[in-house]
Amino acid sequence: MSAKPMNVLWIMCDQLRFDYLGCAGHPTLRTPNIDRLAARGVRFTNAYVQSTICGPSRMSAYTGRYVRSHGSTQNGVPLRVGEPTLGDHLRENGVRCVLIGKTHMVADTEGMERLGIDPDSLIGVHSSQCGFEPWERDDGLHPSGPYDGDVPYDRYLRDGDHQADNPWEHWANSAEGPNGEDHSGWLLVHADKPARIDESMSETPYMTRRAMEFITEAEADGRPWCAHLSYIKPHWPYIVPAPYHDMFGPDDVQDAIRSEAELANPHPVYAAFTQERYSRNFSRDEVRRRVIPAYMGLIKQIDDQLGELFGFLDRKGLSDRTMIVFTSDHGDYLGDHWLGEKYLFHDVSAKVPMIVCDPSPSADSTRGTTCDRLVEMIDLAPTFLDYFGGAPRPHVLEGLSLLPLLRGEAQAWPRRHAVSEYDFAPDSVRVKLGRSVQDSRMVMITDGRFKMIEVPGFRPMLFDMENDPGELVDLGEAPDQAATIARLRAALMRWYASARNRITVPDDWFTADDALLHAGGDPTLRTGVIIGYWDEAELEAQRRLLARFSAPAEATALDA
Amino acid sequence: MSAKPMNVLWIMCDQLRFDYLGCAGHPTLRTPNIDRLAARGVRFTNAYVQSTICGPSRMSAYTGRYVRSHGSTQNGVPLRVGEPTLGDHLRENGVRCVLIGKTHMVADTEGMERLGIDPDSLIGVHSSQCGFEPWERDDGLHPSGPYDGDVPYDRYLRDGDHQADNPWEHWANSAEGPNGEDHSGWLLVHADKPARIDESMSETPYMTRRAMEFITEAEADGRPWCAHLSYIKPHWPYIVPAPYHDMFGPDDVQDAIRSEAELANPHPVYAAFTQERYSRNFSRDEVRRRVIPAYMGLIKQIDDQLGELFGFLDRKGLSDRTMIVFTSDHGDYLGDHWLGEKYLFHDVSAKVPMIVCDPSPSADSTRGTTCDRLVEMIDLAPTFLDYFGGAPRPHVLEGLSLLPLLRGEAQAWPRRHAVSEYDFAPDSVRVKLGRSVQDSRMVMITDGRFKMIEVPGFRPMLFDMENDPGELVDLGEAPDQAATIARLRAALMRWYASARNRITVPDDWFTADDALLHAGGDPTLRTGVIIGYWDEAELEAQRRLLARFSAPAEATALDA
Repeated sequence: MSAKPMNVLWIMCDQLRFDYLGCAGHPTLRTPNIDRLAARGVRFTNAYVQSTICGPSRMSAYTGRYVRSHGSTQNGVPLRVGEPTLGDHLRENGVRCVLIGKTHMVADTEGMERLGIDPDSLIGVHSSQCGFEPWERDDGLHPSGPYDGDVPYDRYLRDGDHQADNPWEHWANSAEGPNGEDHSGWLLVHADKPARIDESMSETPYMTRRAMEFITEAEADGRPWCAHLSYIKPHWPYIVPAPYHDMFGPDDVQDAIRSEAELANPHPVYAAFTQERYSRNFSRDEVRRRVIPAYMGLIKQIDDQLGELFGFLDRKGLSDRTMIVFTSDHGDYLGDHWLGEKYLFHDVSAKVPMIVCDPSPSADSTRGTTCDRLVEMIDLAPTFLDYFGGAPRPHVLEGLSLLPLLRGEAQAWPRRHAVSEYDFAPDSVRVKLGRSVQDSRMVMITDGRFKMIEVPGFRPMLFDMENDPGELVDLGEAPDQAATIARLRAALMRWYASARNRITVPDDWFTADDALLHAGGDPTLRTGVIIGYWDEAELEAQRRLLARFSAPAEATALDA
Repeated sequence: MSAKPMNVLWIMCDQLRFDYLGCAGHPTLRTPNIDRLAARGVRFTNAYVQSTICGPSRMSAYTGRYVRSHGSTQNGVPLRVGEPTLGDHLRENGVRCVLIGKTHMVADTEGMERLGIDPDSLIGVHSSQCGFEPWERDDGLHPSGPYDGDVPYDRYLRDGDHQADNPWEHWANSAEGPNGEDHSGWLLVHADKPARIDESMSETPYMTRRAMEFITEAEADGRPWCAHLSYIKPHWPYIVPAPYHDMFGPDDVQDAIRSEAELANPHPVYAAFTQERYSRNFSRDEVRRRVIPAYMGLIKQIDDQLGELFGFLDRKGLSDRTMIVFTSDHGDYLGDHWLGEKYLFHDVSAKVPMIVCDPSPSADSTRGTTCDRLVEMIDLAPTFLDYFGGAPRPHVLEGLSLLPLLRGEAQAWPRRHAVSEYDFAPDSVRVKLGRSVQDSRMVMITDGRFKMIEVPGFRPMLFDMENDPGELVDLGEAPDQAATIARLRAALMRWYASARNRITVPDDWFTADDALLHAGGDPTLRTGVIIGYWDEAELEAQRRLLARFSAPAEATALDA
């Protein structure tokens, strides 16, 4: 190992399915650079996100906490001020935590104002940016509605002689029609056309270069860093510049994972989602054939850019001291199960690619392997903290460090269940089903074999992923699965009950005096608080016992 | 109603059982002043606290949120910075929220430091004092261990010529032995002796006068106020000055609510608590006969002081414009069920007195009545907010305003279950049972008829309060109660799933566009984000629909 600082490069795509990579078995999509990363690291084949939509999934990624704990249940819901972030944990260990790209974070400006935090102060910026130092913040969608023309990428385009009211939309996310008009990438019908812009100026190469600029600056700075390179792609607008726009065609479009039986007697919540516009459109083969090649082109472009980036790291001598992670914030139905977008919990939506390359020699034994243990997106934050040598914070971080798996040490991986949540309050599904906002919450729990989804007021959905890997048969009403449902419900109850809500003191705050407690001693007596003693003799006997035990380094201050 | 400001006087005792009041049916304890309050208001006979120990119970009272939500699970666990408090809600409505006495709040100094909040700033003080403006903060225990000699009450005693290293302990909480030595009130054996101090200078009259001083000042100030008069008594040290020390005797001690059968095949957690020192001592009749008369004397003294206070309010003309609440933070086993202290969930521990006198004429129809609906301590914060005309905040406040019950309007009281939690991580019970800190949590749920207690890794405890009002028979293993347990478990799951974790946006943030959603419209389109549209025609049709609906006052900013 080099004596130079260790770093983390955490690459996240947006809406990238777990199965659209060469190394994950896609039959025609070649991703040699990502595959090489997998060959140098571990590819996790059962990695679940904690929510099936960008904002909440990312807030879980950036806090290491389930949605039920951080409370940002939907896109646009501010993360409450004071919620501890990966950036907080790393900074306290002397590590920069830097953003290059998307977070989907919305600042809790009301909470900050209530606490008197100036948004422009350093603390205010960290609070507003989900704990990150924002090298470049770009959430990747620059819609013309409430358009903010001052986004760096748009300035870059204008400076590069690409004028337009909205250069992002006009140049990078529209094709040009025969009369010079916009063929907007927002519309699926145009997904087969090339975006106007020269490929080198499109979003993925731009953000890759920004990452290289950061790394160059950071190496000069000398502090260790965790850089979050967060691409918006292959998220919609589904449009990509040449040559990627026609690199794939209808022959590359796999059959949809679906069956007519799914639509017979469907679960009401599932049925409502199949009726959403995006689902109805993606259920049409014409749409799939038009869009999926563009989706693949966007992934191919990312792979090529990662080739550039990994080469850059090699040339800088950083590859042997940088942990590299490649993942995504959720998947994309693309018409599977008669659905579009994400939200529900079939694997194509809730499971993501997760490749971790740990440069440490202790990880040599696992290079190029896959790992089918149940892992979760919230595992990355504790992994990074662990990698940088920080003390674990299990009372805050609900994930588990992956280092034992990466270093071949995890004989007993403790996770038995993965959980994901989705708040459908903003969806028309809520209105159609007549649910209250409070009841518009879904939770998925899986033990790796079975997957159960609970929605208040409805029967559960249940899939047997061993006998039905396509998740085509909902067993939620199968009489012979009652015991499975009861078991998963008990696990879900346990999950709810074990929320890490007590974030202000660590567990060992309670255990520091366990030796004394084992001996029948009374630690509270140290504080001068005397509970339940009858007389002086009883008190004196306890004091003699107590004298044999020294107070823990940081005595707890419990009194009743 | 007067045009002068409306106020709230929120009186809280500490460790006062629900059944130790004249109006609650105690056979020999007369509490005429509290009873008169009940005659002017509503006495709630099924009021549960959200935790059976001071700190967490009070954090729930002061935030209006369950322990699972505010996270201060035990005494001494700081309330996380930014957790919204009653004080925050009232101040935003122009109402002062003032503390006179105990809160058991511990400031989250680490969190404040992380957010750059100066503890001495106004915001810092509110953050440190659980949202209160601290007119006088006194948690009521001044143990000589880490003794803080600068507590106002101790200064008051010294200024009143009561010198001692620890005047609180020496004068107010010890009796004098035959040779002038201390007979410490910390020891139960001395509970029958008079505290040294003159009754008028003891804690309850002192804090009552401090309340009167505040009210005098507040009336001159003119702003509406919510004053929390928070007595430490009848909490231990169980000692009271003359004449209260011998106002009650062994004949006033009721038989313990217990049976030998409780100790046969007991639930392991219950059994472990019966083995704690305080339980072993309180299970002895000698201890009960010594302590309970002092406990009653402390209550009698409170009642007398409330007579003074209510007279003061009458003379000030405040009684007809001040809502008065009388309650407690939890009960006291006093040997019932072979237990001392609190922690477990029998009614003598988890149920509290709750009397609310609403001066509004609209509450005239309920005066002098009792109400057996299930209410919770977290209901007070939304009640006060409602009383002062503040908009409800159901996404933060988990309680329900009691005003409909007080004003005879609640045809359908929505609460079906009350919940209370206790974290036994600091107790020797955890060590004896070999539990992890994370698993050392109990939760109680009751529907008013049955009460179930869940502890991870154990069978449930179950009581049928209709057929067994003494809660003497644990039905947790009764085969014919399996359906009851399943039903309560489902309710508990629902309770967990409905946590108000999304505190940064209100529910109507999601519903503002429901009319549009009902019509098949797409509110997201307003933001310029276009999801799942095939072509221009489909988009144009939706835009025409959208044009028929105006945007809600505060448009949501949802995008995916």
